Amino acid sequence: MTAAAQRLRELHQPGNPLILVNAWDVASARQVEAAGGLAVATSSAAVAAAWGEQDNNTGREAAFTALRRITRAVGIPVTADIEAGYGLTGGELVAALLDAGAVGCNIEDTDHISGAGLRDAGAQAAYLAKVRAAATAAGVPVVINARIDTIVRHPRRDAQATMQETLRRARLYFEAGADCVYPIGLNDPVLVAELTSALGRPVNVNPSDPLSALAEAGAARVSVGAGAFRFMMAEYERRAKKLLAGDAKAFS
Amino acid sequence: MTAAAQRLRELHQPGNPLILVNAWDVASARQVEAAGGLAVATSSAAVAAAWGEQDNNTGREAAFTALRRITRAVGIPVTADIEAGYGLTGGELVAALLDAGAVGCNIEDTDHISGAGLRDAGAQAAYLAKVRAAATAAGVPVVINARIDTIVRHPRRDAQATMQETLRRARLYFEAGADCVYPIGLNDPVLVAELTSALGRPVNVNPSDPLSALAEAGAARVSVGAGAFRFMMAEYERRAKKLLAGDAKAFS
Repeated sequence: MTAAAQRLRELHQPGNPLILVNAWDVASARQVEAAGGLAVATSSAAVAAAWGEQDNNTGREAAFTALRRITRAVGIPVTADIEAGYGLTGGELVAALLDAGAVGCNIEDTDHISGAGLRDAGAQAAYLAKVRAAATAAGVPVVINARIDTIVRHPRRDAQATMQETLRRARLYFEAGADCVYPIGLNDPVLVAELTSALGRPVNVNPSDPLSALAEAGAARVSVGAGAFRFMMAEYERRAKKLLAGDAKAFS
Repeated sequence: MTAAAQRLRELHQPGNPLILVNAWDVASARQVEAAGGLAVATSSAAVAAAWGEQDNNTGREAAFTALRRITRAVGIPVTADIEAGYGLTGGELVAALLDAGAVGCNIEDTDHISGAGLRDAGAQAAYLAKVRAAATAAGVPVVINARIDTIVRHPRRDAQATMQETLRRARLYFEAGADCVYPIGLNDPVLVAELTSALGRPVNVNPSDPLSALAEAGAARVSVGAGAFRFMMAEYERRAKKLLAGDAKAFS
């Protein structure tokens, strides 16, 4: 697992981003591998939807069960979206991840348990530091992708203040041992360039057209999150409607 | 559940078939309902693939876990593909189905446990009769769709002999209490008409173009089985490849 974690970490190259098509079950993870993906990332929202859970801390069992099955089924490193950590301590979280076979994780700074919104940045950094310490103690350089929920979920009064808070959190999270930061919703190459040049460390962005502009802006990781799953489910519904309306070729 | 079972049974109208877009998890089942589906059918092969199980009797836990989550999530009747019954007795099978909230099931006559191929028709009929008796004892008219694996999986030396064996099994299974028979792979309107006129009872077919010809041939149920799932997974892989190749619009 140490080698897999190192491989996953090395795939985070600013300017030559790791592209992650998020999966939600074994079948979708296998398709990502078959498509040539270099790693599998789960999407907690997609896993939760597939299992009929809310994506707000009730889905821990579903998340780790799906994760364990996925890691058994693919030969590439797997990184897990584990929301805000499901209330687990750093030690418990690392133990659960490694037990499930994952070598990376997304940890977000929205507090789902209290519903209080964005977690205090210092408290979140302290949590990330505990996760890092536990991973180090376990001998596996777990790739920590620290999600920052300032842009889409909890924006400040204006774009500049939002960017300042994003940068402040990114620095704290890197200091705490994060390998990459993920300001979810960030996909504007101008803002990506601003962040990557200010930080000089791996940044995870969401896709925008063209992807090459995100690479040029210094992105180290591009992920679609639950977007791929939602698109596929909408496509399934569209085709189901066609079949129900009598079109025998709806799924061909 | 009695009302839901009756509703499901009434949807099997020869000439006006119930169209089933098979689901594999909560999200796909919800999309079937949103698309206007009148019932949800699971596909054991799709559930097994989504969970990383083989579709050969090892997937019982996955099948019933997925089933329970699906029945909780949708408001339409759910019928479960439970392979050959996973080695459960008739009583155990009905108890597991009702406990999971399903009011119908597919039971196939391939013996997965022994690997011996097609089960003896009399033994299969006796099993179906026990399932029916257990359902009656439970007070729920569980809709039993008896799958006949003569056409695709275990054909006879010629088409006529295959059809004769299919008919023979269909009659035995109806006598045992089946509500519908499902000769998997059957989608030729000429053969469908031959079977429905000889039996005068509900027959489940697979899609062929146009669906209206299957309706005219007397089909009471049309299901895609794992076909919809496989199509969607192939589509996901195709789009994943596009994203990995740098197409930001792969999932839009």
